[in-house]
Amino acid sequence: MAFRYPGGKKYIKSNHSKVTDTPARFANRGMSLEQDINETNKHYNATGKAVIHKKPTPVQIVNVDYPKRSAAKITEAYFKQPSTTDYNGIYRGKYIDFEAKETKNKTSFPFGNIHPHQVDHMKQVLHHGGVSFFIIRFSIVDETYLYDASHFIWWYTEQTQRKSIPKQHIEENGHRLAIKYAPRVDFLDIVDHVYYS
Amino acid sequence: MAFRYPGGKKYIKSNHSKVTDTPARFANRGMSLEQDINETNKHYNATGKAVIHKKPTPVQIVNVDYPKRSAAKITEAYFKQPSTTDYNGIYRGKYIDFEAKETKNKTSFPFGNIHPHQVDHMKQVLHHGGVSFFIIRFSIVDETYLYDASHFIWWYTEQTQRKSIPKQHIEENGHRLAIKYAPRVDFLDIVDHVYYS
Repeated sequence: MAFRYPGGKKYIKSNHSKVTDTPARFANRGMSLEQDINETNKHYNATGKAVIHKKPTPVQIVNVDYPKRSAAKITEAYFKQPSTTDYNGIYRGKYIDFEAKETKNKTSFPFGNIHPHQVDHMKQVLHHGGVSFFIIRFSIVDETYLYDASHFIWWYTEQTQRKSIPKQHIEENGHRLAIKYAPRVDFLDIVDHVYYS
Repeated sequence: MAFRYPGGKKYIKSNHSKVTDTPARFANRGMSLEQDINETNKHYNATGKAVIHKKPTPVQIVNVDYPKRSAAKITEAYFKQPSTTDYNGIYRGKYIDFEAKETKNKTSFPFGNIHPHQVDHMKQVLHHGGVSFFIIRFSIVDETYLYDASHFIWWYTEQTQRKSIPKQHIEENGHRLAIKYAPRVDFLDIVDHVYYS
């Protein structure tokens, strides 16, 4: 199923260097959360600390050309809605699964862009004994939090008043992540404290 | 990095219904191994037995059109070499990670199409305590085996005489999978015996 992001927002894939659009909202910020996490995972993988990868963007391929003596070229494809979270892997023997999101909102984290089957997926991961969380960045104030999936699931499924989570709840029940040089966003440091102690 | 399959073989994605090419080699066989495993995972996910998904095909997106009032259309993209295996997830609290391959070869399983960083990835998964294996189908004789990654890694890295694994070794050290109605390829039944007993 092809889809368009809400509000007709353009798809900007920060690690596709050939896509020349620059995401305006990160212009003054340096790296996007996605870039930070990709760098962090690269660091974890290279040092043998964990095996965590971002899943490829799901794409519905409609047409492919096979020119002689050169690479197959996809000439028609559409973005598909993801059915799982973006990141998963293994750390200290446990299955780790998470989603990373940025918001420009200053006071709350809106549910927009989180799909119901992603939430179902997180519920199932918790049910099977995996570690599941969000990494949420409030980009205006440049604050990044690890926030357990169980909290998110409560707000998403157990109440109908709000379409967002108050930032205060994330501050009080999540865990602030410091931005460092390498690894950029050392979320496993928090995972150690929260899930293994 | 864009690539072309060895021998200029066409990309055929069996679960992309709009791609009309029919994979000739499965014409008499019913379902491909990939379809069998996707059905099996769907069954596991739906019954709450495990959470296992196929990763999307990695694609390097070069150009995207944003027509008004319709879905963003990818007009230029290339297949990328995968850096991990195709399937992962969680089962009985453990991280599960595997690759599925079919071969038309009758007497051995060739290394072709397995990339060095996929093998590195499997090594790392084992190192971190995950379950890692291949599901190998010899399509001419229609035999399907679960074969632990440690065996594959040995043949791939510890000897230089052969570029394939003798089928006999897979028969003797792997585990034959029966093809059933639902789930089609009940590999978790074997996983129970091999990794949890």
